[in-house]
Amino acid sequence: MIRIEEICSIIKDDIDNNRLSLSEKSELAKELNGLISEGSIVLAQANPLSGDVKGNAMKAFEWMKWAQRLKVEAVIFPEMFLVGYPIGDFIDRYPVIVEENIEWLNALAQKSRNVKVVIGFVEKNPSKTGKNYYNSVAVLANGKVERIVRKNLLPNYAEFNDYRHFEPADIDSENRIIELGFSQKAGIVVCEDGWNDEDFFEKNLYLTDPVKTVVDEQSPDYLINCSSSITRAKKEQLKHNMLSFVAKKYKTPIVYVNQVGSGECLSFEGASRVYDENGELIARAKSYEEQFFIVNPMKKQGVVYPLPDGLEKTLTEQKAFSLDHEPDLERTYLTITQSIREYFRKCGFKRAVLGLSGGLDSTVCAVLLADALGAENVLGVSMPSRITSLESKNDAKKLAMNLGIKFREIPIGDMFEVVRSKFDRLFSEIESDWNVRYKESFTNDNIQARSRGMILWGIANEFQSCLPIATSDKSELYMGYATINGDMSGGYAPIADVCKTKLFALAKWMNKNRTKKNAIPQSVIEKRPGAELAINPKTNKPLLAEEALMPYEFLDEVIWRVENLQQSMGDMIDEEFLYEKREVVSKEQKREWLKKFFKRMSTSHYKWSIMPPSPIVDARSINKAEYRHPIIASKINYEKTSFEQKLSELADDPVFVS
Amino acid sequence: MIRIEEICSIIKDDIDNNRLSLSEKSELAKELNGLISEGSIVLAQANPLSGDVKGNAMKAFEWMKWAQRLKVEAVIFPEMFLVGYPIGDFIDRYPVIVEENIEWLNALAQKSRNVKVVIGFVEKNPSKTGKNYYNSVAVLANGKVERIVRKNLLPNYAEFNDYRHFEPADIDSENRIIELGFSQKAGIVVCEDGWNDEDFFEKNLYLTDPVKTVVDEQSPDYLINCSSSITRAKKEQLKHNMLSFVAKKYKTPIVYVNQVGSGECLSFEGASRVYDENGELIARAKSYEEQFFIVNPMKKQGVVYPLPDGLEKTLTEQKAFSLDHEPDLERTYLTITQSIREYFRKCGFKRAVLGLSGGLDSTVCAVLLADALGAENVLGVSMPSRITSLESKNDAKKLAMNLGIKFREIPIGDMFEVVRSKFDRLFSEIESDWNVRYKESFTNDNIQARSRGMILWGIANEFQSCLPIATSDKSELYMGYATINGDMSGGYAPIADVCKTKLFALAKWMNKNRTKKNAIPQSVIEKRPGAELAINPKTNKPLLAEEALMPYEFLDEVIWRVENLQQSMGDMIDEEFLYEKREVVSKEQKREWLKKFFKRMSTSHYKWSIMPPSPIVDARSINKAEYRHPIIASKINYEKTSFEQKLSELADDPVFVS
Repeated sequence: MIRIEEICSIIKDDIDNNRLSLSEKSELAKELNGLISEGSIVLAQANPLSGDVKGNAMKAFEWMKWAQRLKVEAVIFPEMFLVGYPIGDFIDRYPVIVEENIEWLNALAQKSRNVKVVIGFVEKNPSKTGKNYYNSVAVLANGKVERIVRKNLLPNYAEFNDYRHFEPADIDSENRIIELGFSQKAGIVVCEDGWNDEDFFEKNLYLTDPVKTVVDEQSPDYLINCSSSITRAKKEQLKHNMLSFVAKKYKTPIVYVNQVGSGECLSFEGASRVYDENGELIARAKSYEEQFFIVNPMKKQGVVYPLPDGLEKTLTEQKAFSLDHEPDLERTYLTITQSIREYFRKCGFKRAVLGLSGGLDSTVCAVLLADALGAENVLGVSMPSRITSLESKNDAKKLAMNLGIKFREIPIGDMFEVVRSKFDRLFSEIESDWNVRYKESFTNDNIQARSRGMILWGIANEFQSCLPIATSDKSELYMGYATINGDMSGGYAPIADVCKTKLFALAKWMNKNRTKKNAIPQSVIEKRPGAELAINPKTNKPLLAEEALMPYEFLDEVIWRVENLQQSMGDMIDEEFLYEKREVVSKEQKREWLKKFFKRMSTSHYKWSIMPPSPIVDARSINKAEYRHPIIASKINYEKTSFEQKLSELADDPVFVS
Repeated sequence: MIRIEEICSIIKDDIDNNRLSLSEKSELAKELNGLISEGSIVLAQANPLSGDVKGNAMKAFEWMKWAQRLKVEAVIFPEMFLVGYPIGDFIDRYPVIVEENIEWLNALAQKSRNVKVVIGFVEKNPSKTGKNYYNSVAVLANGKVERIVRKNLLPNYAEFNDYRHFEPADIDSENRIIELGFSQKAGIVVCEDGWNDEDFFEKNLYLTDPVKTVVDEQSPDYLINCSSSITRAKKEQLKHNMLSFVAKKYKTPIVYVNQVGSGECLSFEGASRVYDENGELIARAKSYEEQFFIVNPMKKQGVVYPLPDGLEKTLTEQKAFSLDHEPDLERTYLTITQSIREYFRKCGFKRAVLGLSGGLDSTVCAVLLADALGAENVLGVSMPSRITSLESKNDAKKLAMNLGIKFREIPIGDMFEVVRSKFDRLFSEIESDWNVRYKESFTNDNIQARSRGMILWGIANEFQSCLPIATSDKSELYMGYATINGDMSGGYAPIADVCKTKLFALAKWMNKNRTKKNAIPQSVIEKRPGAELAINPKTNKPLLAEEALMPYEFLDEVIWRVENLQQSMGDMIDEEFLYEKREVVSKEQKREWLKKFFKRMSTSHYKWSIMPPSPIVDARSINKAEYRHPIIASKINYEKTSFEQKLSELADDPVFVS
């Protein structure tokens, strides 16, 4: 007899491709019925498309039909499935989306039978008071909408905007209980509803706890949590520990259904799961894949698929900066490749073009693109200038060959010359007007970077469904070390949330773990990064990034402390960095680096605001989808002063003191 | 005797420039004391800088000292003054800002005397539960923080993010009452606290109404509303009508203190004011200027400065699309020029460079920049290609002369040729790889636009404190009719929230109302817009924008209906457009235009996401500061389908129907 997980795969394949005839479906359903036990349910770990209400409803219908054929008790979809999450302000600007999602919900309800369908949608708030909508989950059964459960806790931080669009609903615990077959009662909560346990969290964002109320008042056999919860560094640890803790605390199993797939910046890893009443994991769906996942919570039946390598080992939260990126590399790789693939598909693109400099950033991007889109859909363009070393050119070519991507070389020396010759005359004219010229400017560096941008965008304009790629990384974006309309420019920015030290680790990891080993030339991993846009007059060689900035190991720790500990400059001066354990760093040097960091960071906010979309990977990011910052930040006081100093600045008025 | 408004100007001048000696200050205070009556207060219509806590505190101190010298009852600052609004997520990322604002508040408190200081700041929430902060107003007096009032209603829509950062506080009406001299009791509300009257608004966002509670429970002599409330189309009408209605309804005067100045996208017009118990306006500060504004609410003393021309006439809300932009033009002009000036100042820039095409967009931008920054700080660059007409070149030059801005001409033909020659070979190579070339591409158009972008950014790189300007307008941004790294690219985008028909009206208005009349050549206003990037094969002349898109009068009404009425495509098909009253438009033609609009708009979201900052002007905008949209929007269902059609799409499964 074939195993249940194989059958799930066959069903998923049929849903996607309609491979089976109706009689084959019927046969399979019969065969499977022996495996399906009383109380089995389907976790519909599915991938919606924002705003495509019809497409999402049609997809749900295919899953529903399979659940009906198999005669499971219920099929459970993620939060907001019908409108597609993230949906943002679309529902306010285009209320037709909400109207359509309600009609499609009613149409699906008409097609429902004795298998309950639990599905997230956007509900209109009929009241004269409050926001226009509720974030709700409907239970469809026997041709009707049997129940609507409204979300109580509305997150509104980082990437979440729930309270912006939705009215918080009362908990109403009785309404949250659905009867499944064989006298099982399940209590429904919606995503954040399950994230406010007072014993688990040090600080609670909300005054209510729907889980506690539902369990205390209704004693359900188990809880169902319909979620759309993203992956990011440290999140799996938190999620596992929290769900396990709550299940155990209340002696109540938890069925957690999560979305899979990516919006442009948010990535959902799936990994839907079931914890038993002791907090033990008894089933977990695959990560980064749609899955028709059959479990039986009360009989503790289910398959536990592995998490990406490394995550299991680190189910405690990382409290200090570490250069050991290993535990997060497979997840990082899967998150970015899924994001690229989905962004292209969901926007209707197929091919990518990027500049290959022979440096680390473009190299890592090329590998990720090849794996996400297929090597044949990636074009790497080497665009050497006079400064580009032969080694870099060779590395670019070698990488392209190893990956099997398309490759072209287009020297940009003549573009540089024609622009430069214009500038020579123009600048001297302007100087006579303004007389405020920089002694050392980045103009020459930037002409090169922008010439490359012009070539890549030209290719994208000329060839259908092709997007250029921005290759900037997180460390350099923090420092504003990226060229507007140059390497910062593109349709997507795969590594904008990956720091340099982690990129090195990722490159090594990919060389070791991809089917084709060592695609990245060793020299790329070994050489010290530099943009090859300018010559360092001190060394007479291309300027290295660390010469212009500071050591990456130090920089990445500053970023980590800003993002994870919200430390001020003063805090950082007082604490020892990992880098300081290895290298002697004078107080003056450290202070200079920190000052440089805060100064450059402050003036980089504008650049962040015009960055193309990019996947959130880290525990926190500068991604627009989660960080709402003004740009006029040139005078933020990052450093504390004493109260006495403040008082002394407020000079009294002697006339009035007397 | 000099009038009180003149003295206010002298005081403001002293605050800014410290012109007066201490004895002069003392003299002036004595002279003014005759004019100051019992119950006089100062509305501190001031302009903070986001994150510059020290700077804001030092500024507040100067105003405080003048209030003390004059012996008024109180000096009242806007909401969030100490941290500077907008502050966004800075307070979460850099909690040092909040710590500093609390220390500065305490330092200011120590310097307070018997003149009460009412000032907005960010308060820490000491509780284990809830968000980290409160949006609060402190009352400082006699060396202490006498009272803290916390905001109850936290807006979280459009440009507002209050609930993202702040815990909503109880109303606590007793705590909101401060005693001013002469037994006057004033009740404090914070901005949105005053915006939820159940009789005024058709729909109420919130369940509570602090104004009602404070008036019912405490019967204050008047209300003080500390605000940071932006200007946008139709907002003044709403604000005036609402404040007047509420004052009259409760027979309670309202003192409304508003911030002035601009963040990068949000513009505050000031126009702080006082309504008496009959809802009559008895004082209103200047618009778009900092002002030390002395009023006496109970004695009904104060000056009513005029609003920008046009606004007084239209104190009822516009319910239908209109091509009569006149009533909003002065406000539009003042909002944009203030925004430019402030963005440059607050980011540390002084000069602007922009491409002058001789077309409407760049022309209007040049005028606005000259007026905001001073003509000597603006450089217009004409960058003709082969397609550029002689007329356009002449118009650009003439405009520059009329404005007195710097002007240079740099033909880009050679840049185009060198790029184009590269592309010829490269594209044929790539075509053999992919075989998916567009038959008609925009590559040539875009090379021209991007060459211009490269020149402008080069100038900005070479000359200190100089920013390039993006000249895209709102109509064209909706249609994605703008070039990435070309006209869309820059450090600031002055007219990104102004539609084309309004831009024409604004150009005419500026020609009539600026000191120097008719700076804009008549031909610029008369000719039909076109980017002059491509030749229309049908006419053999440069392609006109309306040929590529649709008539601007129609397009602007579609945008208006989307933004103001949230209409779907179906709604618009059924309703008559203004354009249809003048021109015969077939149903097919209208449907084609609407389809084109929704299709092009959907694929333009990416472009909006990488637009530089720009001022919000219209009633709604696509500005990132107010519109949170996903990009993966290629399949939004903008058109309704019938329920029956939906049901028919959900094909039953005959095996199971039986």
